[in-house]
Formats: sequence, C-alpha cells, structure tokens
Amino acid sequence: MMPNEAANAPKTYNACVLIIGNEILSGRVQDENVAFLAKGLNEVGVRLKEVRVIPDDSATIVSTVNEVRRAFDYVFTTGGIGPTHDDITAQCIADAFAVKLILHPEAKRLLEGHYPQGAVNEARMRMAYVPDGAVLLPNPISRAPGFRIGNVYVMAGVPQIMQATFNELRHRLKGGAKMLSRSVSCSLGEGVLAKGLGELQARYGDLEIGSYPYFRRADFGVTLVIRGTDRPRLLAATEELKALILALGGDPHEGASED
Amino acid sequence: MMPNEAANAPKTYNACVLIIGNEILSGRVQDENVAFLAKGLNEVGVRLKEVRVIPDDSATIVSTVNEVRRAFDYVFTTGGIGPTHDDITAQCIADAFAVKLILHPEAKRLLEGHYPQGAVNEARMRMAYVPDGAVLLPNPISRAPGFRIGNVYVMAGVPQIMQATFNELRHRLKGGAKMLSRSVSCSLGEGVLAKGLGELQARYGDLEIGSYPYFRRADFGVTLVIRGTDRPRLLAATEELKALILALGGDPHEGASED
Repeated sequence: MMPNEAANAPKTYNACVLIIGNEILSGRVQDENVAFLAKGLNEVGVRLKEVRVIPDDSATIVSTVNEVRRAFDYVFTTGGIGPTHDDITAQCIADAFAVKLILHPEAKRLLEGHYPQGAVNEARMRMAYVPDGAVLLPNPISRAPGFRIGNVYVMAGVPQIMQATFNELRHRLKGGAKMLSRSVSCSLGEGVLAKGLGELQARYGDLEIGSYPYFRRADFGVTLVIRGTDRPRLLAATEELKALILALGGDPHEGASED
Repeated sequence: MMPNEAANAPKTYNACVLIIGNEILSGRVQDENVAFLAKGLNEVGVRLKEVRVIPDDSATIVSTVNEVRRAFDYVFTTGGIGPTHDDITAQCIADAFAVKLILHPEAKRLLEGHYPQGAVNEARMRMAYVPDGAVLLPNPISRAPGFRIGNVYVMAGVPQIMQATFNELRHRLKGGAKMLSRSVSCSLGEGVLAKGLGELQARYGDLEIGSYPYFRRADFGVTLVIRGTDRPRLLAATEELKALILALGGDPHEGASED
C-alpha cells in the first residue's frame, strides 16, 4: 500500500468476542453467539478479529479482559452474569478495571419490576451489581441488564438474551465501512484453482479471497469468498473469478452475497 | 485443598484449540470443530481450557501459537493447510518454531498416490511441505496430511477431515482422569435455586457445578451440570441436587451423563 493511501484510508474498527463458559469448553453446548455477533458487527462496519472461549475462572477472565480490551476497539463478552455461584463475570470485569462492584439503582428497579413482590432474593439482587462507572445495557427478555464499561460490553450467554441486547446497542456502535462479500462455488478441486486464484488475489490486494472446500454427501467442491469494502472492485474480481472457473472447465454458481 | 492432597493429585493435562480462519470470524461458517474436539479430548482425559479463533494473518498466527504452546500441554489447530494462497498455517508454524518448511518425502508419496498421474501440480505439492522435524498425522479422507511438531497438532479445517485425523491420533494422547458429568434439569428459576446450589458447590469443592438457563418456545428452566473425576462424589452430589430441587417444589429430570 502506498503511504498516501494509508494516510487517507478511513479508520477501521475491530472487535474481540470473549465467550465465558465451561459449557462450551466441555462440548456440552454448541456455541451460537460467535456467528451472530460476527454478522451483526459486520453490518455496522466493525470487524471481528478474534474470539476467545475461556472458562469460569477469575484469574483467566481478569487477565484475558485486560489483554484484549487494550488490543481491540471493542470487546464483547457473553456469559456469567446470572444469579448463581458460577456467575462471576461482573466481579471479574470490576477487578479488571480496578473498580468496586456497586448496586446500580436502575438495575435494582428493573429487577423489582420484573419479579413478583418479594421474589427478588439475595441471589437475584446480585444481578443488579455492576462495576462502578458501568452503563446498563438493555435486556428486553428477562430484565437483568448487561453493562458496558470502557470499551467492554458485557452480555448474557443465553443466545436469545444476548441477541436482544446486542440488537438494541448495535446501531450506537461507531464503525467503519461495511465489509461486502460475494461467494462463488464450483466443483473444481482447490488444487486446480489454486494458481489462478493466487494470481487473482495478487491483482486485488485490497480484497480478501478465501477458498473453502466442502464435502456434502457424494458432492464435493469449493466455495470461493471475496470480501472487501469497495463494491466496484468486488464485482470486477467476482467476474474475473467466474471467468477463471469457466476457463478451467468448471461451472461457477454465485452464492450468498452481503451488501 | 490440603497440601498433601495437592501433592498426591494426579497430573491433569490441558489443551488449547486454535481455529484459524476468516470464515468463522466473518460469520459465514458456523464452527463445528470446537464441540467435537472438546468431547474427544475429554474422553482421553485432556481438558480443553481455551479456544481462540484467529484470522488468516501470519503475524497473528505466529504470535498466538508461540503464546499458547508454552501455556498448555497440547495445542490443536484447525484450518489453513490446503493448496491455495490463503493456506498459510504450515509456514506460520515453521516460523513459530524457527525451523524451515521442508518437502516431506512420505507426504509427497501420499499425494502422488492419491491424485491421478500428473495432477499433483505445484499448488497441491505445497501440501507436502511441513516444518522441519514435524511428524505426519493421517488424513484418511483426502490424504494431504496434518502434522505434529512439539506439542502442536496441525489439522485441516474441513470438519470431516479434522475428525478423521483426530480419531486416528486421540488414543495416543497422554491424558489424566476422564471428566465425568451428570446433568439435571428442572423448571425452577435460577434465582430460586441459587442459594442451595451455592451451598452444594461449597460442600463439593472437588466438583464443578454449572447452572445454564434455557428458553425453548414457551418452556423455560435450568440445566444443572455437575462435573468431576470421582464417580461416588459425583453421584452423591447429584442425589443432593435432586433432593434440593424437590425441596424447592421443582421436578428434577436427569439428562445426559458422561461416564
């Protein structure tokens, strides 16, 4: 890239997702949150650059949060903010920021409004405690709020709650250009395509071209995905890719696009 | 834990999984490899302690591999060992270990045996290059092998190939005691159970008790998962948990167990 291009390039915003929970690491639960957040962030121009799945262990959570909140523009955590003994995320985030965990009056009011009179016991009231200085994030489903402190957004692990919270906050995130994509599949082997594909990537250094083989029943082939922020360049590269596949004797099929 | 208990405790073996691939971070593909590896590792007594999903970016791959191979007993990577320009994992692993990438004679022979005469072009032959000192890992599906160097096991990202490779190597991994588990579900709220559950966890410090709320259609409830290596303790805690649920007016259902 030429120096003046770099100087003029709009800022890109990146994010790291932390999935906090033994249930993913034990294989008991298949994560659904990463794919949802990846797509949702992209739609507001934020690139998901890393995901970490870590256990419900205080020292690990604190050190990981402190590492990634300095390395990325945004950090989104899921999991560990309920009322039970294994819900330690709020305390760990407070520790990471070296602040106290405090009873948030608005969170207390939300919980008292959600549960029947007298049902907000000590365990449930734990969900009204957030790190000092945190801003509440809405939970339209079960009310116990997530929160944001600095660039760290702390959300529930239950997919329905996490998604509802994220959908309420996503349009307030500051992002850059949206990543657009085109995909083309064919039944050629990757090894047949590789040389031409590498040459195409070399001509389009501003785009990211990925090659993903698939095996479905007796069917196999490869999906090529081209991503970038410049629509005319993306479309031009897609046409060149389809021509390459045809020249090699393949049958290109355009698949899902994002724009 | 008493000092003599710690001294007598058998060694536990832990692992980190690195998912290398832009397609997971873009949300285009839902990862399936983590849950498979988590379960498979547990069956041979290895605990999955962390997962990272990182992009096809050399500097990120090299630094991450060097960080995690020192922090965990085992590292398993998936993705980026095919024939196309975006397959950079083998070179990055070589860089991380500060060794050269070399043509492995056995890998070359495997590829030449798999493809028709003359079809092993330059791109496909890239798959026969491994870091100097690496040992090949079998790929019963498409032959292009994975490899192991030090404590790092490098496998394909395509789930069918990764699974076939892992199934061939898993019983050669050195592991400790298998983690056993019991799960019990009920329709009580987490906040109702939390106090008793915390007390149960305090009495069974050698077990790990997790609480996972669920929402399915109009149905909601919580699944409690108890994990540990000592079967009698696990069964005793499970009975206490069921009694707790009954005492609180709930209806305990035993779910999946692993033993």
